[in-house]
Amino acid sequence: MTSLEAIKYVRGELQVLDQLKLPHEFVYDNVSTCEEAFDCIKSMRVRGAPAIAIVAALALAVELEHKKDGTTQKLDTIKYINSKLDYLMLSRPTAVDLSNAIKLLKKKSADTAANSLTPDQTLACADIRLSYIEGAEKILEDDLTTNLAIGRYGAEYLRRQQVAIHTPVANADSLRYFTTSPPGTQGAPDQTYRKLSVLTHCNTGSLATSGHGTALGIIRSLHKMNYLDTAFCTETRPYNQGSRLTAFELVFENIPSTLITDSMAGALFARRKEEKNISAVIVGADRVARNGDTANKIGTYSLAVLAKHHGIKFVVAAPTTSIDLYTESGASIKIEDRTGTELTQISGAVVGKLDGKVDVNHTERVAIADQQINVWNPSFDVTPRELIDAIITEKGEVVRSSKGTFNFKGLMPQRWREQVEGSDESQATMNSAGSQGLQTPMSEESTQFYMESI
Amino acid sequence: MTSLEAIKYVRGELQVLDQLKLPHEFVYDNVSTCEEAFDCIKSMRVRGAPAIAIVAALALAVELEHKKDGTTQKLDTIKYINSKLDYLMLSRPTAVDLSNAIKLLKKKSADTAANSLTPDQTLACADIRLSYIEGAEKILEDDLTTNLAIGRYGAEYLRRQQVAIHTPVANADSLRYFTTSPPGTQGAPDQTYRKLSVLTHCNTGSLATSGHGTALGIIRSLHKMNYLDTAFCTETRPYNQGSRLTAFELVFENIPSTLITDSMAGALFARRKEEKNISAVIVGADRVARNGDTANKIGTYSLAVLAKHHGIKFVVAAPTTSIDLYTESGASIKIEDRTGTELTQISGAVVGKLDGKVDVNHTERVAIADQQINVWNPSFDVTPRELIDAIITEKGEVVRSSKGTFNFKGLMPQRWREQVEGSDESQATMNSAGSQGLQTPMSEESTQFYMESI
Repeated sequence: MTSLEAIKYVRGELQVLDQLKLPHEFVYDNVSTCEEAFDCIKSMRVRGAPAIAIVAALALAVELEHKKDGTTQKLDTIKYINSKLDYLMLSRPTAVDLSNAIKLLKKKSADTAANSLTPDQTLACADIRLSYIEGAEKILEDDLTTNLAIGRYGAEYLRRQQVAIHTPVANADSLRYFTTSPPGTQGAPDQTYRKLSVLTHCNTGSLATSGHGTALGIIRSLHKMNYLDTAFCTETRPYNQGSRLTAFELVFENIPSTLITDSMAGALFARRKEEKNISAVIVGADRVARNGDTANKIGTYSLAVLAKHHGIKFVVAAPTTSIDLYTESGASIKIEDRTGTELTQISGAVVGKLDGKVDVNHTERVAIADQQINVWNPSFDVTPRELIDAIITEKGEVVRSSKGTFNFKGLMPQRWREQVEGSDESQATMNSAGSQGLQTPMSEESTQFYMESI
Repeated sequence: MTSLEAIKYVRGELQVLDQLKLPHEFVYDNVSTCEEAFDCIKSMRVRGAPAIAIVAALALAVELEHKKDGTTQKLDTIKYINSKLDYLMLSRPTAVDLSNAIKLLKKKSADTAANSLTPDQTLACADIRLSYIEGAEKILEDDLTTNLAIGRYGAEYLRRQQVAIHTPVANADSLRYFTTSPPGTQGAPDQTYRKLSVLTHCNTGSLATSGHGTALGIIRSLHKMNYLDTAFCTETRPYNQGSRLTAFELVFENIPSTLITDSMAGALFARRKEEKNISAVIVGADRVARNGDTANKIGTYSLAVLAKHHGIKFVVAAPTTSIDLYTESGASIKIEDRTGTELTQISGAVVGKLDGKVDVNHTERVAIADQQINVWNPSFDVTPRELIDAIITEKGEVVRSSKGTFNFKGLMPQRWREQVEGSDESQATMNSAGSQGLQTPMSEESTQFYMESI
C-alpha cells in the first residue's frame, strides 16, 4: 500500500493530482511550466495552503532544470525567476504560504547571484538555477518533515493518554490491542493497550500538503504504529471536505474508517466511546492565536464542546507557522461569511437512475434546500483555548497547563522574543504562559522526537 | 398571509400537498378515494405520523360522503369501512398514529351500528357514514387543537423566561422589543421584553401534522404573538428536512428565519446569542420515555449539549401521545441504523449550469462523498432528561424539577394509574416524579392555557 501523494516530484518532472476529479477519479496532471501550475492552482485542481506553495515553487524548478529560461546572463536569470514568481503569486494572491515561499526563493536566488564570483556567466546562470531548484525542493522536504513530526508527536501524545493493561491480555486480539515497549524503558516489560479511535473534521491530509498531513497525519501515524482502531470523519458541511477528500484518503490507504454527518458526533460519543475507545478529536488549524484560541473550519467548535462533555481529548495539529503570535486571542480573528448557495446547492457526479452507478463524466449541481431562505454561512469558527487539551506542532506538543495557558514562548523562544517581547513588552509578559504548558523544552530548531522520561 | 396547510379539507373534498415537489413546487393533489390516499402515503407525497393518519381517515370520509360504498344494509356498510381501513393500514404498516386512528374509527362505526335502533336500513347506513365522517373530522380537529395548545404553551413558557425591562424602552424599536400585559396582571403596568430567537431541528411543522406543528408550532405562536426575533433552523443532515421543509414553511409564512448547517449551531450560540437573544432550542420528539429521556431526529442530542454549554433552554414539544409510559428510559429505545447512501448521495432539482436557475422538472441524484467509505447512519439519538429543561404538551408544560425529574404522573394521572401503577406498582413508585416538575396541576382533559399566577 503506497501513501497517497497529491504532488509527485523528481528533479525535472512534476505531477499533480487533480482534486476536482476526486473522489471518483484519480488522475495526475503533468505540470512542466509556470502557466500550467497557475492554471492548476486557479482552477482548484490543487488546494491546501502548503500544497499550493509547493506546486508553484516546483513548477518553476522544472522549467529551470530544463533551461526553459534560455538566459545566458545571470541578471537575466534573476529577472526571469522574479517575473515568473510574481506571475505565480497572482494565482492565489491571499495565500500566505505561497507568498512566504516566493519571498524565500527570490532572496535565495538573489543571494546566489550576488555571491557567485565566477566570471563565466553560463556557469553563474547554472549556479542560480541549481540554487533555486534546491530551494524549491527544500520547501517540499521541509513540509513533509514537518508533517511527519506532527504525526509522530501526536500519535505518541495520544498513546500516553492510554491506560496500560498491566497484565498483558492473553491471546490479545491484535485487532483490538497493541503491545509496545514504552520509549525510554528499554528492558522493561512490554505494555499492552487497547487500540484507540479518533474523530477528525475537514481535510488536513496528504491532499492539502506535500504528503502525510497534519491532523490526518496523526491518524496516519497512529495507523502505521498499529495504535489505531477506527478513524471517524465528519462530512464537514457545507463543502464536504470530510466526505469527499478525507474519506477518499482513508479508503485509499486502507485505514479503518467510518463517515458520519457533523450532527452525529454527539451520538457517536454517547453510544460508542467505550466500544471504540474514542480518545480524541483531532483537527487542523487555520490560525492559532498567541493564547491558544484556534480558528478552524466551521463545526470545529461544536466538536470541542461535545468532546469536553464526554471527557474526550481535543487536539489541534498545526505547524508552528500557523501559530500567529501577533494575534493575541481568538476575539481578533475575523471570520468570513460566505455565500448561502454553498448550503442550498451542491455539486456531484450523477448517480444513474436505473443502475445506481456514479457517472464520473457527468456532474450536476442540485438544489438541496429552499432557495429563498436566508442563510448564515461562516467559513470558520474559533475554539477557545479552554476546550483544547493539546496543540501538536513539528517542534513538539504544547499541552494546556493547569493555569489554562499554552507555552508558545517555550516552544519558539526566538520568535517570541522577536514578535511578542520585541513589539510590546508589557502585553507579552501578561500573556506569556507558565512552563507547565510545554512538556518538552527543546531548542527552536530541533526536530527530534520527544521521548517521555519515565 | 395564510398559514401553510398540508391537508385541505371540507366535507366531501380532500386536497393534499405533494411534499415530494417541495420546496420548488407547490401543488395540491385531489384525494377522493382510499386508493388515491394509499398512493399518496406510499409514495411519501404526504409524510409525518399525524398527517398520514389524517389523510387516510379523511379519504374514506370523502368516499362515504359521496356514498361510494353503495351499501344498503348496515352490516355491509361496516364491512366496507373495515375493509377499506385494513387496506389503508398497509400503506404504512409501522405508523402508530395510523393504527390508532383506524382502531378508533372501526370502534366508532361498530358502536354506531350496534346502537342504531332504526329498522330503516338506509337510515342506519347513513347514520354509520355520518358517524365515521364525524370521527375522521374529529381526528383532524383534535390534532390541530393539540398543536395550537402546544404552540401557545411553548410560547408563553419562553416568554416567562425573559427578563422584563422594567423601565419601558423609549421609542422601543418594534423590531427588537415587544410589550405585553402579563397574563393575570390586568391593570398592572405593561412590561417590555426583548424579542427572542430560537433554533429548531428537522421538520415538525404544518407539513407533518394537520397544521401549525409541534416545535415549529411554538415558533408560529411566538411569531403570531410578536415575541419572535428570528427562527434559526438547521439543515438536518442527512435528509435535509430542515433546509427543504422547515425552511420552506418559514419562508412561506414570512417568519424571520435563517438556515445554518448542523455544524454551525455552536458558532451561532457563541457568536450571536446576545445579539439575537437566542433563548431556546426547540425540537419535536419521536418518543419521550417515562423518565423524560427523548428520542428524536439524529443531531438533537448534540444540540442539547451545546445549549447546556451556552445556558440556552432546551425544549421538547410533543403531544402526550408521544409520551410512552411503558418505556422506562431512553436506554431501552432501539435506534435504527440506516443505509450509508443516505449520506453519500443526495437528490435535488438541477441548477442550470449557465443561468443558475432551478429546473423543477429535472431532478438528479448526485454523489457527494467517496462511495467506498464505511458509513454510520443512525436515524435518531436519545437526549437524556438532564439536558432537557421543559417538555411542552397540549395539556401544559412539564418542567424538569430540581430533582431532575419530569412529573408525567401529574400531567396524565389516569394514564399513569393504568399504564404504570397498574402494570408494576413498585417500579412506578420508584420512577414517579416529584410535584415540582409540572407547573400546572390540571385535570387530564383540560386544554385550558396555563396562566402564571403572579
